[in-house]
Amino acid sequence: MLNLDYKAAMNHSQTNFSQRRRWATDQAISFLMQQGVEHPHVLSLGAGLVDAASLPVAEAIQAAQEVLADELRGQSALQYGTTQGELRLRQHLADYQNRLEQTSTPAARRVAVADEIVCTTGSQQLLALLADALFDPGDICLVAAPTYFVFLGVLEGVGARAIALPADEHGLRMDALQAELQRLEATGELSRVKLIYVVSEFENPTGISLSLERREQVVEIAKAWSKRRGERIYVLEDAAYRELHYGAPADAVPRPLGSGPVSHAVRPLPDGRGTDFPLPSVWSFDIVGDTVIHAGTFSKSFSPGLRVGFGLMPRELRDAVNDLKGNQDFGSANFNQHLLAELLGSGRFAIHAEQVRAAYRIKRDTMLAAADEFFADLPGVSWVHPHGGLYVWMTLPPHIATGFDSPLFRRAVDVEQVMYVPGELCFGGPRDERQCNHMRLSFGVQSPDGLREGMRRLSQAVRAVL
Amino acid sequence: MLNLDYKAAMNHSQTNFSQRRRWATDQAISFLMQQGVEHPHVLSLGAGLVDAASLPVAEAIQAAQEVLADELRGQSALQYGTTQGELRLRQHLADYQNRLEQTSTPAARRVAVADEIVCTTGSQQLLALLADALFDPGDICLVAAPTYFVFLGVLEGVGARAIALPADEHGLRMDALQAELQRLEATGELSRVKLIYVVSEFENPTGISLSLERREQVVEIAKAWSKRRGERIYVLEDAAYRELHYGAPADAVPRPLGSGPVSHAVRPLPDGRGTDFPLPSVWSFDIVGDTVIHAGTFSKSFSPGLRVGFGLMPRELRDAVNDLKGNQDFGSANFNQHLLAELLGSGRFAIHAEQVRAAYRIKRDTMLAAADEFFADLPGVSWVHPHGGLYVWMTLPPHIATGFDSPLFRRAVDVEQVMYVPGELCFGGPRDERQCNHMRLSFGVQSPDGLREGMRRLSQAVRAVL
Repeated sequence: MLNLDYKAAMNHSQTNFSQRRRWATDQAISFLMQQGVEHPHVLSLGAGLVDAASLPVAEAIQAAQEVLADELRGQSALQYGTTQGELRLRQHLADYQNRLEQTSTPAARRVAVADEIVCTTGSQQLLALLADALFDPGDICLVAAPTYFVFLGVLEGVGARAIALPADEHGLRMDALQAELQRLEATGELSRVKLIYVVSEFENPTGISLSLERREQVVEIAKAWSKRRGERIYVLEDAAYRELHYGAPADAVPRPLGSGPVSHAVRPLPDGRGTDFPLPSVWSFDIVGDTVIHAGTFSKSFSPGLRVGFGLMPRELRDAVNDLKGNQDFGSANFNQHLLAELLGSGRFAIHAEQVRAAYRIKRDTMLAAADEFFADLPGVSWVHPHGGLYVWMTLPPHIATGFDSPLFRRAVDVEQVMYVPGELCFGGPRDERQCNHMRLSFGVQSPDGLREGMRRLSQAVRAVL
Repeated sequence: MLNLDYKAAMNHSQTNFSQRRRWATDQAISFLMQQGVEHPHVLSLGAGLVDAASLPVAEAIQAAQEVLADELRGQSALQYGTTQGELRLRQHLADYQNRLEQTSTPAARRVAVADEIVCTTGSQQLLALLADALFDPGDICLVAAPTYFVFLGVLEGVGARAIALPADEHGLRMDALQAELQRLEATGELSRVKLIYVVSEFENPTGISLSLERREQVVEIAKAWSKRRGERIYVLEDAAYRELHYGAPADAVPRPLGSGPVSHAVRPLPDGRGTDFPLPSVWSFDIVGDTVIHAGTFSKSFSPGLRVGFGLMPRELRDAVNDLKGNQDFGSANFNQHLLAELLGSGRFAIHAEQVRAAYRIKRDTMLAAADEFFADLPGVSWVHPHGGLYVWMTLPPHIATGFDSPLFRRAVDVEQVMYVPGELCFGGPRDERQCNHMRLSFGVQSPDGLREGMRRLSQAVRAVL
């Protein structure tokens, strides 16, 4: 699919690289970044960066001043931390998790504690460490189709197999999950299944969230099959976009996927308090605490440059992640963990997150309005109306390919000077079975004017190839 | 050797962990940290932490203010960076490397450029990424005996074999390296050798540096054998302690290792400018730039809490490390890289490093004076007089074991309330072939008074078991 220089170079290499290194080539993200560098004037709807104007410069300097004002506290922040992460931050994270769960479910089903939390270099490192802890080559991870493409790279990097299962407007389909586990049992491969991966909120790339019912069901299914095979099947809940909820777009009319502009419906909560996020996490349905890993991050809601992510997880996995992280780096940046502890403790993180939501709500609405303006008359083109996150997922007629070597991608980049992420990158499983007619459009980076102009250019490219 | 709770727990685990996770258990560092937590009143000569009073609180706040004062620059520091690391920092690092090499060799043999540098989460992450890039299970890394024990854990974690070779007061012995490569060729295992690991300055644990001659020789040997087998054998130069040079102790009398108090002799440079560090790096002898990786860090010389390390490396390896790091975390904390760029650019890092050297010089001298005071009369006890680094390596009579389950360790921790790192942790290869009668004593954490008291207590424990 990709055609990077180093592929050719590796064929003439004098180095006998490891199998791991060979698995880690061909990363789509590298190609995307290379495209950005080679075409600096291209307007990017591809990059998953966050809005620059929303970045908390004032908050960061204030937190740094507070952490460093006291000599002893400053020294503690600049010293080595622990592999698991700064205790004060982990306590604040436990409180934060408990508050979010209580917002959605007044009678919380379980209580988070600092001891089950590990702090990582973004949540990406947690995903990578979990993959390292669980997967031997050939082991299986069940994912939605489509799903977060960088995690597919992580799975490929450890030689794991991603099996992609159908999703609809309520997220990963539970009937498909059940059927696949039955199929794997029949083929004798059930013992290779280690993990079910779900992005619970505003999935990258589709913007769709896992419904409340399915949050409970996925935990039940994992536990039932764990019991049946006598070994644990974990559920990894990636909640990277949990804070980025904007409510339904004002003009959204729910329609089925693939038949014109669509909205994914968020069902009312059982107590009738409406559709607002946060929903109770998948983690909250794992009462015993032996099945679900909840991965969170401050990269989207605060600052990716601080690179602070975290996970709540069963004790056995926490030990495994700690041991592996001990070899990897024996702890992420302690200073940054002190900054985040300060920001959570002072309440300034919560204030900033509200500002971020307000800014992205406008940009989400701008992109959807531009989609209506420039794409509504195109036959067979539809898109999701996300209630949060950073992406609009657009579907073209089945015969219009969107990949890196498609006429559309070349036309978009070379002629119209606009870039997107080809949807096929987000599908696990065999390449010839992947859907090739989607685009992931990000409203993270561009200003509202840039978003409208980007959508205009993209519609020109689509018109040219239709 | 260790007996941690989770070992028992894993036997009853319902989780089918990966081979990688199983290789990552039994980490000595975890046991040491656990001992510290369980015995909070123990005076630690074990911890590899840096001196708290030397930590740059004022410098950090100033750098944070400068990076964040300008809104655009602040936003750039708080946004995602690149996987390879902030360009401005990499340019400063290249300049820094070139200055250090010019100090030692006026006519520099090669010039560092930003493009060959990758920034990591401490240099530990670089070591781990290189291990991932090179080693398949069963592959071989040649190391000194003793060497940095955390790197031995990294090798174990990827299933690689560490072959430990003799070292003397000039570091890893080149005749032993040659002989081992010949032996491996004879047994048909030469193709499994991927890396030669050397700590070029003040090796953790011995404090011994690789001599100038051997710096050149190790590169020549690696290149010659690479050519002979048609595949690259790399040299990893771990220069974590490069900045921490204090000169020879005032009263040091060079004597051979193992025969009473010893000093490792630093030979005069060829131009007669004396024995001062920095010596030219191993990296500087790799003129073509296809063989040596130079790993550096700001954890010892500035602040471990910022967790900024870096490596200069051949292009093929840089690509491999970038690809693997893309899956691991797609970039270490960008904000911290901006801070270090500011500190290097303003010259404040160099000023701080000089202060750090002055502080550690006093503590090094204090520990050596205490060793003379409390250990000189003990028969068969000797120690290295290091010219830099953070450690004094002490050797007891061969029949006195120092390990976690030895009478000495229990006596030291339980009765005398002092802790050290058992030397046997620092030996690769089969456990029954490891030397068991050494101790690594750190002068990093304790104050001069604490160092003297710790040495007094330790001598009491040694007397009790002699």
